[in-house]
Amino acid sequence: MATEKNLKLVYKGKTKDVYELNDGTYLLKFKDDCTGADGVFDPGMNTIGLKIDGAGLAGLGLTKYFFEILNEKGIPTHYIDSDLENVTMTVKPAKTFGKGLEVICRFKAVGSFLRRYGDYVEEAAPLPAFVETTFKDDEREDPPVTKDALEILGVMTPDEYEEVKILTQKIANVIKDELKKKNIELYDIKFEFGKVGDKIVLIDEISGGNMRAFKDGKHIMPLELEKMVING
Amino acid sequence: MATEKNLKLVYKGKTKDVYELNDGTYLLKFKDDCTGADGVFDPGMNTIGLKIDGAGLAGLGLTKYFFEILNEKGIPTHYIDSDLENVTMTVKPAKTFGKGLEVICRFKAVGSFLRRYGDYVEEAAPLPAFVETTFKDDEREDPPVTKDALEILGVMTPDEYEEVKILTQKIANVIKDELKKKNIELYDIKFEFGKVGDKIVLIDEISGGNMRAFKDGKHIMPLELEKMVING
Repeated sequence: MATEKNLKLVYKGKTKDVYELNDGTYLLKFKDDCTGADGVFDPGMNTIGLKIDGAGLAGLGLTKYFFEILNEKGIPTHYIDSDLENVTMTVKPAKTFGKGLEVICRFKAVGSFLRRYGDYVEEAAPLPAFVETTFKDDEREDPPVTKDALEILGVMTPDEYEEVKILTQKIANVIKDELKKKNIELYDIKFEFGKVGDKIVLIDEISGGNMRAFKDGKHIMPLELEKMVING
Repeated sequence: MATEKNLKLVYKGKTKDVYELNDGTYLLKFKDDCTGADGVFDPGMNTIGLKIDGAGLAGLGLTKYFFEILNEKGIPTHYIDSDLENVTMTVKPAKTFGKGLEVICRFKAVGSFLRRYGDYVEEAAPLPAFVETTFKDDEREDPPVTKDALEILGVMTPDEYEEVKILTQKIANVIKDELKKKNIELYDIKFEFGKVGDKIVLIDEISGGNMRAFKDGKHIMPLELEKMVING
């Protein structure tokens, strides 16, 4: 790998930095910063709450693991290759929807879903791979946005929304089934999609920081999840 | 009208009380309480911020005016009759969706829409009768809820959602056109729907407290709106 000094920094993210390579592909550098508050990990939060040694490598390890499974199944992703030694991943450069859209898939009523709809649903009630979308917008606390709003804001067509929804449910079920093999239950997961040309593909990462996973009723922390999935 | 002592109180609302009459119809008693905070009217708020003498009568006046237009056009509503002297309205008893669902129709990007999507839209940009739904839930600050979520929570079927959306756009355009005759511009309006048997009908009220209306760029307060529409 070229040293980072020779690379063009495209985007400085909270948990990853993005560089452009000479051949037009992108290099994602995973960092040890985790989202949360006051030293407590929370995948639903926007702030960097803590730094954990090895978090970047664990995130890349899981991402590599899941993206390679998805690529094998012919599900479109931006993933090309990864380099565990340098904690980097090369990907196809994709255009995000708007300034970034998070697509959440829920199998259990927890987190913000429960906070919003607690008058209509019991905690941890099963949900049928329910999909919802929020804008990545720290200043506005990631506002929820509907299919209709995405259309009128010019971010995504209704057909694209339906495609993203179906892809999300398909991918979430692949991850859920993989975790189930390790006796881990997936409660919810968030994805990001982008377009490479006209093709919608899964982008970003798939790691412990993007999901709530439980074993024997206990929430699994991101680094622990990587150990359980890769070596378990 | 029977005295209120003879009536069975069904529901005590923020701006209206609901009584059941002997013939099975409901009587809505409009009050002078208005939503807002610290003495300032705000249709987007849940709290009672002020009491204005005559607010109940003005609300009923506008509601009667608009509901009679809608009934003439054959648009299904719960409206039967009204009694300005006693500040009451008789309506068909309807079943709400869940514990009450607010359906908002927007012609301009203001209020909470702008607060959420200010990264994608200019203030007061035109919107094409954009429809969105929120639960009436003071404790959870009226959380937004999507068509998909309404389905999985068992509140509304997708077909019912589409029917409500089309009715909302139709009714909002009727109100918009009526206001336009008085040189008033409708920015947004919120409705509530219910079911009488299997039929979806517009319920609640249509008053200054449910909409943002502007004249010559100036926001019109609820009581002023009633005067401008009824006597203007």
